[in-house]
Amino acid sequence: MSDTICAISTPFGVGGLAVIRVSGEDAVSLVSKFLYPAGTVRGTRYEVRGAVVSAPLNDRWLSEVEATSHPATPHLKFCEFRDGETLIDEVVVTYFKAPKSYTGEDVVEIACHGSSYVQQKILQLLVANGCRLANAGEFTQRAFLNEKMDLSQAEAVADLIHAQSEGSHRLAIEQLRGGFSKKIIQLRRELIDFSALLELELDFSEEDVEFANREKLLDLLHRIKTEIQTLSDSFKIGNALKNGIPVAIIGKPNVGKSTLLNVLLNEEKAIVSDIPGTTRDTIEDTLNIQGTLFRFIDTAGLRESSDTIETIGIERTRKTIEKAQIVIIVDEVRGTGYGVRSVDYGNLHDKQVIHVINKIDTATDFTNSNDEILISAKNGIGIEKLIEKLVDFASEQKVSDRTLVSNLRHYEALNHALTFITNSENALKSGISTDLVAIDIRGALHHLGEITGEISTEEVLGSVFSRFCIGK
Amino acid sequence: MSDTICAISTPFGVGGLAVIRVSGEDAVSLVSKFLYPAGTVRGTRYEVRGAVVSAPLNDRWLSEVEATSHPATPHLKFCEFRDGETLIDEVVVTYFKAPKSYTGEDVVEIACHGSSYVQQKILQLLVANGCRLANAGEFTQRAFLNEKMDLSQAEAVADLIHAQSEGSHRLAIEQLRGGFSKKIIQLRRELIDFSALLELELDFSEEDVEFANREKLLDLLHRIKTEIQTLSDSFKIGNALKNGIPVAIIGKPNVGKSTLLNVLLNEEKAIVSDIPGTTRDTIEDTLNIQGTLFRFIDTAGLRESSDTIETIGIERTRKTIEKAQIVIIVDEVRGTGYGVRSVDYGNLHDKQVIHVINKIDTATDFTNSNDEILISAKNGIGIEKLIEKLVDFASEQKVSDRTLVSNLRHYEALNHALTFITNSENALKSGISTDLVAIDIRGALHHLGEITGEISTEEVLGSVFSRFCIGK
Repeated sequence: MSDTICAISTPFGVGGLAVIRVSGEDAVSLVSKFLYPAGTVRGTRYEVRGAVVSAPLNDRWLSEVEATSHPATPHLKFCEFRDGETLIDEVVVTYFKAPKSYTGEDVVEIACHGSSYVQQKILQLLVANGCRLANAGEFTQRAFLNEKMDLSQAEAVADLIHAQSEGSHRLAIEQLRGGFSKKIIQLRRELIDFSALLELELDFSEEDVEFANREKLLDLLHRIKTEIQTLSDSFKIGNALKNGIPVAIIGKPNVGKSTLLNVLLNEEKAIVSDIPGTTRDTIEDTLNIQGTLFRFIDTAGLRESSDTIETIGIERTRKTIEKAQIVIIVDEVRGTGYGVRSVDYGNLHDKQVIHVINKIDTATDFTNSNDEILISAKNGIGIEKLIEKLVDFASEQKVSDRTLVSNLRHYEALNHALTFITNSENALKSGISTDLVAIDIRGALHHLGEITGEISTEEVLGSVFSRFCIGK
Repeated sequence: MSDTICAISTPFGVGGLAVIRVSGEDAVSLVSKFLYPAGTVRGTRYEVRGAVVSAPLNDRWLSEVEATSHPATPHLKFCEFRDGETLIDEVVVTYFKAPKSYTGEDVVEIACHGSSYVQQKILQLLVANGCRLANAGEFTQRAFLNEKMDLSQAEAVADLIHAQSEGSHRLAIEQLRGGFSKKIIQLRRELIDFSALLELELDFSEEDVEFANREKLLDLLHRIKTEIQTLSDSFKIGNALKNGIPVAIIGKPNVGKSTLLNVLLNEEKAIVSDIPGTTRDTIEDTLNIQGTLFRFIDTAGLRESSDTIETIGIERTRKTIEKAQIVIIVDEVRGTGYGVRSVDYGNLHDKQVIHVINKIDTATDFTNSNDEILISAKNGIGIEKLIEKLVDFASEQKVSDRTLVSNLRHYEALNHALTFITNSENALKSGISTDLVAIDIRGALHHLGEITGEISTEEVLGSVFSRFCIGK
């Protein structure tokens, strides 16, 4: 980890400006080779010196940096970035001295014009002089390894970057601020203390002593179990906030499910035709409505079908319904009534269900019960009312002051830990020998430690940081 | 121009970080409303304060800024960007005090995480508090209006951002450093002095005085004419460097022109078939070879055709040849010889011509003259040699120390000025009355002033800055 890494930190492409980040021991000496005083261009930002100075800023910059009164204050300079005599760009260079930087190492950020040529050229020059191109998430990985943040906070940085809605943004920010990992760390430390006592007992097993107070241990295990259970239960909501609340659009063939999807998404996402059974794949897309992300899923119409592909589609529809939190059942107007719902939608008891009657533009004289929303997907009638209902349902799920788990890795670690805790609790209650209890507690400690990164393997770190973009 | 504008300056999309730029009188007071001291997150960059401070940085930040010993040094701070109690992101805020900023106004740059949600949210909050979304190029336009740069330098910023090759990058950098506009400004000033004298003569026209020395005026006009002519002539090369050296691939039908194009571009750009006359449109794309941008143009095969569409294609081919600087004539192997070049390629005397014999994989025993390159486009044989030749030709065109005009607007203004200068020179020589000479000189002054922006209309400024991306 002692080498110096570089990457473009701003989004890929062309823009007004781009930032190249360099981190590592040699960051300053590496970058300073290319820096020359600004001055040959009329109207530069800070000062106009008459002549081209042909020596790099190297020593001058370093002594300026040293002379800064507060060493914790980043040092910022406008200068030329040159390859020998060739001016590459005019840049603003900011130096964050270790350990007061994002990674905890010396960091230099080069803000250049957002030309892809300039960005690439600067990277090339740095690499040709011994800098290494950073891997995805490597800056944040260094921040983690230098104890600037724990692993779940590092993961929150990636979540924050990919946040698409108010809900997922709030989740990421909360996790970035410590979120539940503070709690986990504290509970885990208490458990470690007990674990140490238990291990001590094992060392003196022949003497039959009891260092760990069993009652207090049971109490701690209970508290941990309750906490983990609550966090684990919150995953369904947390995950929905992050990836969108799954909304399945279901119904018999040809009632206008795909048309409704297209209207909701405001684009021609699904192919629409008059032929029943047009949709075979489940088609989905997310939409941010008033800060909440919904994941709408159009499904194949439910009917008995002899078409093999359609049958597979119908099978998928049933699975989609199982995973959905909200189900929109679409039916259509038939004269002055509507189609009898003879379809088996499966078990909907834990779903929030919205009944929609489509094609009301074709109705002549139509009455319906109050819990049905009348729409015409084709003409955009009633869609606002449907959206209102969706937002109502979603807000019931939001418990704003609760800590939510939204990361699958955390969820799985929590569940593993829960199993071990429950086992050790049972073992303790039934008076099973201490060494078996100790094994279960070790298991729980391991999985809790995985969440915060107190225990981390190459593999876990690899999979966590590969989710990042290059340059963060 | 007194309002405060904001925009995302980094490329569109998701990345490690993004920068939002705010410029104008109210930049500091507007942004500071949302800034709170960092401190609630473990492991922030600079310092960890214990508690959440609920008052914005507002006054504290301002007094810190004021207390900076060098007012010309930009002020940088790590803090929280909040909407009331809601933390939006942790940001690094840099303040460039007017006039020592890019625009010449107070500029605040907010570096946040490169999440599209965070970027949009910050923009929204700024706009809701009285900031205006900047138009394309508006920051640079303000820099121009505040005399931080002249118009041709402002245009160079856009060119630099869109530079794709070493050649176009060098052109933009040169223009950014003043390039030929310094020369133009100087010549124009000399001409203005003479123009003033001529106008004075017109005021005293009844007295028949001569304030402007005719010999010196003729000398100046001559110098200006030579300079403008040289610059105007350089446009062909400058434009080629910027937009790619046009290389026409021509030949009879079905000799493998499209296959060659695809091999050069390394993608299936043109449709290839065995049927002669497959290509009808002229298909083109650029490729950066060793720092030089080439614009390869595949053309319809040249033959007499009764097919209407093909005939239009052949007509286009002839026009393409006219515009090309390099022409690759493709022929094919026929047994042990090759097809007779009976095709009329038009006038190629000012082109650099490369003869290529394709399909040598089908040849059994084949001899050729030295100036032909044997290739098999299908199998990638001989392509390296062809590329070598292209680079040779291109390097002959590069005159590295020469000032090149690459901007069509400049080229046109130069040509207009040239006409007026030539007219005034002729008028002066033939002793035509002073008022007509003065009109021509006024015309020349106008067009020269357009280049540097000393004379600019809303329309010109609009078209110049609309080429920019938002945020620059």
